[in-house]
This record gives sequence, structure tokens and C-alpha cells, in this order.
Amino acid sequence: MHVVPPALDRLIADLNRLPGIGKKTATRLALHVLRSPAAEAHGLARSLSELHSSIRLCDSCFVFSEKNPCSICADPRRLSDMICVVEEAGDLLAIEKTGAFRGLYHVLHGVLSPMDGIGPAEIKVEELVSRIRGQKVQEVFIATSSTVPGEATASYLFQRLQSEPVKLTRLACGIPMGMDIKYADEATLARAIQDRHGSRDSG
Amino acid sequence: MHVVPPALDRLIADLNRLPGIGKKTATRLALHVLRSPAAEAHGLARSLSELHSSIRLCDSCFVFSEKNPCSICADPRRLSDMICVVEEAGDLLAIEKTGAFRGLYHVLHGVLSPMDGIGPAEIKVEELVSRIRGQKVQEVFIATSSTVPGEATASYLFQRLQSEPVKLTRLACGIPMGMDIKYADEATLARAIQDRHGSRDSG
Repeated sequence: MHVVPPALDRLIADLNRLPGIGKKTATRLALHVLRSPAAEAHGLARSLSELHSSIRLCDSCFVFSEKNPCSICADPRRLSDMICVVEEAGDLLAIEKTGAFRGLYHVLHGVLSPMDGIGPAEIKVEELVSRIRGQKVQEVFIATSSTVPGEATASYLFQRLQSEPVKLTRLACGIPMGMDIKYADEATLARAIQDRHGSRDSG
Repeated sequence: MHVVPPALDRLIADLNRLPGIGKKTATRLALHVLRSPAAEAHGLARSLSELHSSIRLCDSCFVFSEKNPCSICADPRRLSDMICVVEEAGDLLAIEKTGAFRGLYHVLHGVLSPMDGIGPAEIKVEELVSRIRGQKVQEVFIATSSTVPGEATASYLFQRLQSEPVKLTRLACGIPMGMDIKYADEATLARAIQDRHGSRDSG
């Protein structure tokens, strides 16, 4: 299609490289940017250019941050003896949004995936072990996803940290809040039955 | 959420401003960009910055182009006596992809929408009329969408151009190719019945 101006074509190709953005969506977004004032495109361009230069990894928990240590690690109100292990920064944000966790985090930056050549050395496992040994940690809460690689990573961590003097916990699996049991998938419902518990009067 | 670094937050907000990109998708995209090499973010930033400076509207058909006249208007192989009227540049690209139209285009840059204060003066209607009068045009093919504003715009154009010595045609409506009639919506099926035609042996 020689009818697309090269500058527009380049933007479409660049947007198309983002995850979940197909050729059609990329074209729609690029045409939107073209129709909007140039200032909007320049604002987005500036945000993109500044991203990597102003953000680094926190030396302690490996989350993306502009400061080091990050705002969570530096916050004296957080419980420093609880570490929540997540796959990536997006998971940390999801947990933070709930407000249900007041400890610190540890971002693995990936999950075990032998097929893709990702073993424990490729994700931040050793860093977690030395953090547990160096700090006074009471509980390591493993909050990887309940996907196959997430579960495999959780299993590996349980095994790896078994000998450490810490309490190991795992994110609960079960039917989503507000869901009618009839519509739950079998695997989730079976897990919810296995993991059934007594009353939660204490809160 | 003070846990999101400001630079990441700015990018999320900018992406969130694009059509069809919600807060969650914006976050996912921004985190992807952050995890990818900085060169990728800079490439996208450059494409965005260069977009408006290198692209302008073709003086004749009003499509976005780096050259003036655009590559379609300048192509001697196109039939210059046929003008296809579209709402916006994206529609032109969709028609070009089919390869079924060999004439020139006219981009209205919008549709009539009295509720939003968009009348004939806000879109490129006068430009179309003077183009028809100035050039030797045989057929004006109105290819606005079959939405309510698209149909209204087509009706208006039919009325407006009635007195001009040109053949006026409209994009056909009917059931999509390969569709089972059972699943067609009533309005489309009714239109397909109204617009039924004889055999098309001639191609």
C-alpha cells in the first residue's frame, strides 16, 4: 500500500509492535494521533523518551522506581518482615490497589519456563534468598499467578525456601467474589472445595 | 497510588488518552515499554514527533500525505473522472486495500452531526462541489459508512449534487460475504432484500 505516507507507516509499524495491538488497532491509533493536535503526539513522545532515563530498578525489591530504594522499601510504615513475591511490576500494582497487603515486595521479573530457557538464574531468586538471609523476615508470601508457569514457580520457591526459618504462604485460589457457583470452571471450583476453611469471624 | 513512578504514570495517562485504550491496557502497554530496550521506546517517540511535521493534507483530495498532490492524485493510471467520497482517511485505506476502486478520492474529514454542531461548512463539502465543477468528473461515488450520521451525510450529498451533471452512486448495503442469512440482523437483511438485483454474469 504505497498510499500510506511513510511517516504514518512507521508509526503504525511501531505501535503494531506493542503487545495486543494488531495492524488495524495500530492504524486506528495512528490516524487518531494524526487528527489530534501535534502537541498531543509530542507529549506522548516525550513521556516515552523520558521513561527509561528516569526509571531504574530498586536495589532491594527490583520494582521499577525513580528513586532507590523505591517508595515502598523506603516507607517506614510498611511491615519490613513480610515479603510478597510477585512475577512482575504489574502484579505489584494490582496488589497495591487492593490495599490488603502492608509488607514489602520482591519482583522476580519472570517465571520459571524451562521451554524458553528461563531457569532460577534468569529470575531474581538468588536475590530473594540473600534478602531473606540478610534481613529479619518472618513471612514470604508467594503471589505468583495461578497459571501453569506461575504455579511451577511457586512450587519451586516453596522447595527452595523450605530450609529457611520463615513462614511460607501462597495466594488463595477459589471462586471469584460475587460469582454464581454454577458458572465457575471445574478446576477453580475443585480448588475452592479443597481449600475450604472455617468461619472468618475474626475478620 | 504513590507507588507508580511519576514518569510511568505520565506515560500511562498519555496512552490512556488514546481511543479504546483504558487504564488497564495503558498500564500493560507502559510496563511493556519499560521492560523492552530503551531503543524501542525512543523509536516510537521519534515516529510520534515526526508525524505532524512530515504529513500534511493533499490540496485536492484532503487525504494525509507527505507530498502534495498525494500519490493517488498524482498517479496518471487512476481514473480522474471518478471521485469516491469518504468520511476519513481510514476509510480510504480500507477501500484501497480491496483494490476494487481505481478512481480518485475526496476525504470529508467528518460527517454531518447537527447535535455536535457539525454542518456542511465544517466538513469538506464546498471543496467537493468546486472540484466537481472544476474538473471533468463523470461519477461521484459516495462511500460514507452505513451508520446514522454516514447515511445522513450521503443523503445530504445526493441532494446537494443533484443539479450537477454527474452520476451519483452509493456504496451497496447487504449481508456480508460468507454470512448465513439466519444470523444477519433484521435491518441489514431488509436492506439486502430491497436492494436485490439480477444476475451479475458480466462480473
